[in-house]
Amino acid sequence: MYFASDNSAGVAPQIMSALARANEGYARGYGADEAMARVTTQIRTIFEAPEALVHLVATGTAANALSLATLCPPWAAVFCHETAHIEEDECSAPEFYMQGGKLTLVAGTHGKMTPAALRARIAERGQSLHNTQRGAVSLTNVTEPGTVYTAAETAALCAVAREFDLPVHLDGARFANAVVASGASPADLTWRAGVDVLSFGGTKNGLMGVEAVVIFDPAKAPQRGPEFELRRKRGGHLFSKHRYLSAQFEAALTDGLWLDLATHANRAAAKLAAGLARKPGVSQRHPVEANLMFPTWPRGTHARLLAEGAVYYDADSPESEGARLVTSWATSDAEIEAFLSAF
Amino acid sequence: MYFASDNSAGVAPQIMSALARANEGYARGYGADEAMARVTTQIRTIFEAPEALVHLVATGTAANALSLATLCPPWAAVFCHETAHIEEDECSAPEFYMQGGKLTLVAGTHGKMTPAALRARIAERGQSLHNTQRGAVSLTNVTEPGTVYTAAETAALCAVAREFDLPVHLDGARFANAVVASGASPADLTWRAGVDVLSFGGTKNGLMGVEAVVIFDPAKAPQRGPEFELRRKRGGHLFSKHRYLSAQFEAALTDGLWLDLATHANRAAAKLAAGLARKPGVSQRHPVEANLMFPTWPRGTHARLLAEGAVYYDADSPESEGARLVTSWATSDAEIEAFLSAF
Amino acid sequence: MYFASDNSAGVAPQIMSALARANEGYARGYGADEAMARVTTQIRTIFEAPEALVHLVATGTAANALSLATLCPPWAAVFCHETAHIEEDECSAPEFYMQGGKLTLVAGTHGKMTPAALRARIAERGQSLHNTQRGAVSLTNVTEPGTVYTAAETAALCAVAREFDLPVHLDGARFANAVVASGASPADLTWRAGVDVLSFGGTKNGLMGVEAVVIFDPAKAPQRGPEFELRRKRGGHLFSKHRYLSAQFEAALTDGLWLDLATHANRAAAKLAAGLARKPGVSQRHPVEANLMFPTWPRGTHARLLAEGAVYYDADSPESEGARLVTSWATSDAEIEAFLSAF
Amino acid sequence: MYFASDNSAGVAPQIMSALARANEGYARGYGADEAMARVTTQIRTIFEAPEALVHLVATGTAANALSLATLCPPWAAVFCHETAHIEEDECSAPEFYMQGGKLTLVAGTHGKMTPAALRARIAERGQSLHNTQRGAVSLTNVTEPGTVYTAAETAALCAVAREFDLPVHLDGARFANAVVASGASPADLTWRAGVDVLSFGGTKNGLMGVEAVVIFDPAKAPQRGPEFELRRKRGGHLFSKHRYLSAQFEAALTDGLWLDLATHANRAAAKLAAGLARKPGVSQRHPVEANLMFPTWPRGTHARLLAEGAVYYDADSPESEGARLVTSWATSDAEIEAFLSAF
Repeated sequence: MYFASDNSAGVAPQIMSALARANEGYARGYGADEAMARVTTQIRTIFEAPEALVHLVATGTAANALSLATLCPPWAAVFCHETAHIEEDECSAPEFYMQGGKLTLVAGTHGKMTPAALRARIAERGQSLHNTQRGAVSLTNVTEPGTVYTAAETAALCAVAREFDLPVHLDGARFANAVVASGASPADLTWRAGVDVLSFGGTKNGLMGVEAVVIFDPAKAPQRGPEFELRRKRGGHLFSKHRYLSAQFEAALTDGLWLDLATHANRAAAKLAAGLARKPGVSQRHPVEANLMFPTWPRGTHARLLAEGAVYYDADSPESEGARLVTSWATSDAEIEAFLSAF
Repeated sequence: MYFASDNSAGVAPQIMSALARANEGYARGYGADEAMARVTTQIRTIFEAPEALVHLVATGTAANALSLATLCPPWAAVFCHETAHIEEDECSAPEFYMQGGKLTLVAGTHGKMTPAALRARIAERGQSLHNTQRGAVSLTNVTEPGTVYTAAETAALCAVAREFDLPVHLDGARFANAVVASGASPADLTWRAGVDVLSFGGTKNGLMGVEAVVIFDPAKAPQRGPEFELRRKRGGHLFSKHRYLSAQFEAALTDGLWLDLATHANRAAAKLAAGLARKPGVSQRHPVEANLMFPTWPRGTHARLLAEGAVYYDADSPESEGARLVTSWATSDAEIEAFLSAF
Repeated sequence: MYFASDNSAGVAPQIMSALARANEGYARGYGADEAMARVTTQIRTIFEAPEALVHLVATGTAANALSLATLCPPWAAVFCHETAHIEEDECSAPEFYMQGGKLTLVAGTHGKMTPAALRARIAERGQSLHNTQRGAVSLTNVTEPGTVYTAAETAALCAVAREFDLPVHLDGARFANAVVASGASPADLTWRAGVDVLSFGGTKNGLMGVEAVVIFDPAKAPQRGPEFELRRKRGGHLFSKHRYLSAQFEAALTDGLWLDLATHANRAAAKLAAGLARKPGVSQRHPVEANLMFPTWPRGTHARLLAEGAVYYDADSPESEGARLVTSWATSDAEIEAFLSAF
Repeated sequence: MYFASDNSAGVAPQIMSALARANEGYARGYGADEAMARVTTQIRTIFEAPEALVHLVATGTAANALSLATLCPPWAAVFCHETAHIEEDECSAPEFYMQGGKLTLVAGTHGKMTPAALRARIAERGQSLHNTQRGAVSLTNVTEPGTVYTAAETAALCAVAREFDLPVHLDGARFANAVVASGASPADLTWRAGVDVLSFGGTKNGLMGVEAVVIFDPAKAPQRGPEFELRRKRGGHLFSKHRYLSAQFEAALTDGLWLDLATHANRAAAKLAAGLARKPGVSQRHPVEANLMFPTWPRGTHARLLAEGAVYYDADSPESEGARLVTSWATSDAEIEAFLSAF
């Protein structure tokens, strides 16, 4: 009954096997390993983007912060939702890597920005010498509250960015869950909609610790690639034994494993949500569209679940009745049933 | 015949097994895993430092840069050898994490600073408002040219730092090799000599990708710990699935594995150096004291070795006759013999 | 009819005379001039703060950004009003000097924060390792929309900061106008209310280009002073011919000139506002409490005023009917009358 | 007998008059004043560079640091002489504005780099992903030890920079003195020799506090200009009452005043040096070519000069017999004679 986070789960067995296989002999370091070339090919194929540049880092915060720093200068504002991970959960890493940039927050229900709200926020940031300049738009899909942007919604937001000639970053820490939930193709959810750089998450989807930064941006990719690589090295995020990052992604992208893992997680969430819907006194604060949910129930129920061994966020908050539950590739039916019957 | 780097080797089998064992069930993230508590205890025991703080990161550059940023303010100079890894091979990561600090270089044969040279360099940096302030001393052991500071030499350099009231950082990317080579205890090579913060390398010593930052500094450790943790998070170096970092170090520190691996690497280097010493036209530019060496031989020999499949730095340089060879836990006698007979 | 800004006016004649007097003979540089010692004494006396530290810089942005960087670490959030100058008009200078900090915005009518809104915003910023940490509160008095915090209002906001153990910065680019408007003593509007560091503006109040940073904070001032000085030098804000900064402030603080100049500006605004109130179709968007106002009138009136030679912000905006008018020490009755009769 | 620095002198009377004249009426702020347009024209004419961009700041440190930050990315090294002001006297301001760049030091007698030494230092900085990248070359003329690069020497060093495709910055805090001393035209000492950006000093040459950053670089100037302006604002170096910066430079550049002031200072130094040459026991550590000198005499003489009221650097050092004497536009024959007779 462990629903604290999708990163509380371990590593999928296929990934562990791949790591063991990768451990044979010597390999060139720092991204020059042969597996990395294969990962680049896989990602280009899956995203239908034969020119995309791909670089691996080990954490989502590194992927996001390095991407934003590459997309805009230090005196720029990144427009993002007020609940975005980059705003709430990265200890000002984006501002550190941007070397003093700003996040300008856009409100919106269920973690999603509307084109109108985004446009208004960009427009109101003046563009004289006195102002922080407009820098980039950063979307998150799956959003922090667990909702999912469709390809059309993504495209509409990217179109607003284009009105102001701004590049678009997509924080896809749970991108696999978004693909599965939306039914859209990876290309439709990203570059075809107007996304320039994607943080393509692996860690939350059953990998050990690896995220791919995918630079689509056809005109600017050749310049952005080397800059990204220098920023990655300078941030301490270039791995000497890089083959172990490559191996994880290669295995995940083989035979659709990454989608299978996300499908499992999303289905587990749906099952859990369906079970909760039948419990009296339970409501959901946001639509359950991927692998996380934010239900509310009475404090007494929290205490009982805690006593039964359930683990999730805010189980022990003295004030709030709300919970956050996250499912993963590893969530079992038994766990879901145990949780529901502990109610 | 792979002597390019100790990070070209794979992961020692005991470490791979530990990773597999660590992959059971759920675990708390971000350093709150149970294995991390055990690693802290192990390191405190091995270093005879019951109050030391221990934090893990995945790369040596992160360990060094975060350590230096925690030790001195942005307007400070770090005094280090002119061949130090932080100066030569980290793409200005220390300056980035220090947010504009300076490395002030000290010359010295075979990669080692003398107390007199260090003192002179510190003294000549003025301390008015107009000057970059004196910040910290950073040593490297094993040095980049492969030599080893003894405990007494370390203590003498730390004493100079203390004359100026400066803290001392030790870049120990190959610390295990230095312990083995010097015969000194971990404590004697670090805090007992006056080192405040150690970058304790794992990756080059048969781990997958993990370094421990050990904050000894008894008076200031309680303050430096939280600051280090915030800097680590903000740098994108806090791992959600942290258990896999912990597991590597826990296995390495169990039953002296870390010393066994370094002993193997150092012995392989000694064997290789002994074989090279019998070859005509070969000389060493630095004493071979740990697991790397810098021999010189005629260009024609390089071409022959390259043709035979040897891999090492500057085998293919058109200009230089010098080579860099590094041995590791994985270097086999067969490789050494094949290399020597390819001469 | 020049109402674009109080910094469009020139330098008060007494200040020009002081500069001429300061131009005799040689003087020590970088703040060691004798006049600076006198300025410190004057400010300590006027603020009834015998231990306060005083440092001069030439721009308000430098004063604010250096103050905030001295008050909080790079991973911290400064809580300020959403219209604050540091957010809107300094091109991310605070984030640059803080080296990646964040401004967290508080809403509030007429540019003023309420204690409740401030408290809620501070409280909602989580304090785990994942969050940007709480850093400081920054107030502005006179506010950007031209309203004035009373001493009691200032104290109430500082009390909220103290609940969270946060230091308080006051952007006093128009501090003289606030003192005059509020009728409070300089001490009551600052340290006695709980302000730790004041950006004490000179430039907008008839000086040529100088602001005093006053560090009251009795417990931490001795540490903050040297850090501020190093940050000032490192920011390029330490003047070699510092005597000309000192001379301006010394003259302004002699015989209450600074208050006379602000009184003139505030009275001019009151006169102008009174005249506007008699014009049909004119309304004020904010209470006129100091020396700036934000009236609204029909587009056609803007065009006519512009044609008559009036200068003010947004006279020529194609969209907005709103204007910003600022009076200064130099505003003459003739200008006001000409403006009103051009209506 | 005040020889501590050329910035210990006051402001030339013509400049003071210009400031008084500038103080009439209202003026647009932030560089949009009419005088600034005239300054730009003057500088373009004097430098025979009709496309040059000109921006004013108030301190030499700001001019240098902002210039370097505009010329190279944060992961780059600036190659400069080991005695350069940017290395020795700016408290790591260049590293702060570059956001973590590096200064790589070149040795050379009398403060001057040779092309060979510069070339060697640039060449030895590797250019893999692991290295701080090559960024720019920064020259200083007049050098810190008081020597002067000729136009040919400048061109030879710029040619080395061009070999590596690096831009060139010239710290001209005493550029007027260099022009006078070298007899070269402003154009020959800068862009025609290959300089891309000049810090054109005013403060040390009888102005109150203003330096012009001149961006020659014909191909890149249009891009660098806006970036420089944003960096200037963000650094807090954009003056609201900018007309007082413009007025200083306009007066200095009118009728060759800037050259007259520098000629006076250089002649005073020559006179003083000639007088010292006749004193027994006095030697010069560097050739006296502009307006500063580094003589040596016995400690006892220092004590006597000090007692007589002489002011200069290291008069009171307990250890050194060396002095630094600087003359300025304000140095009088009487001072020189009094100093020489106090010997």
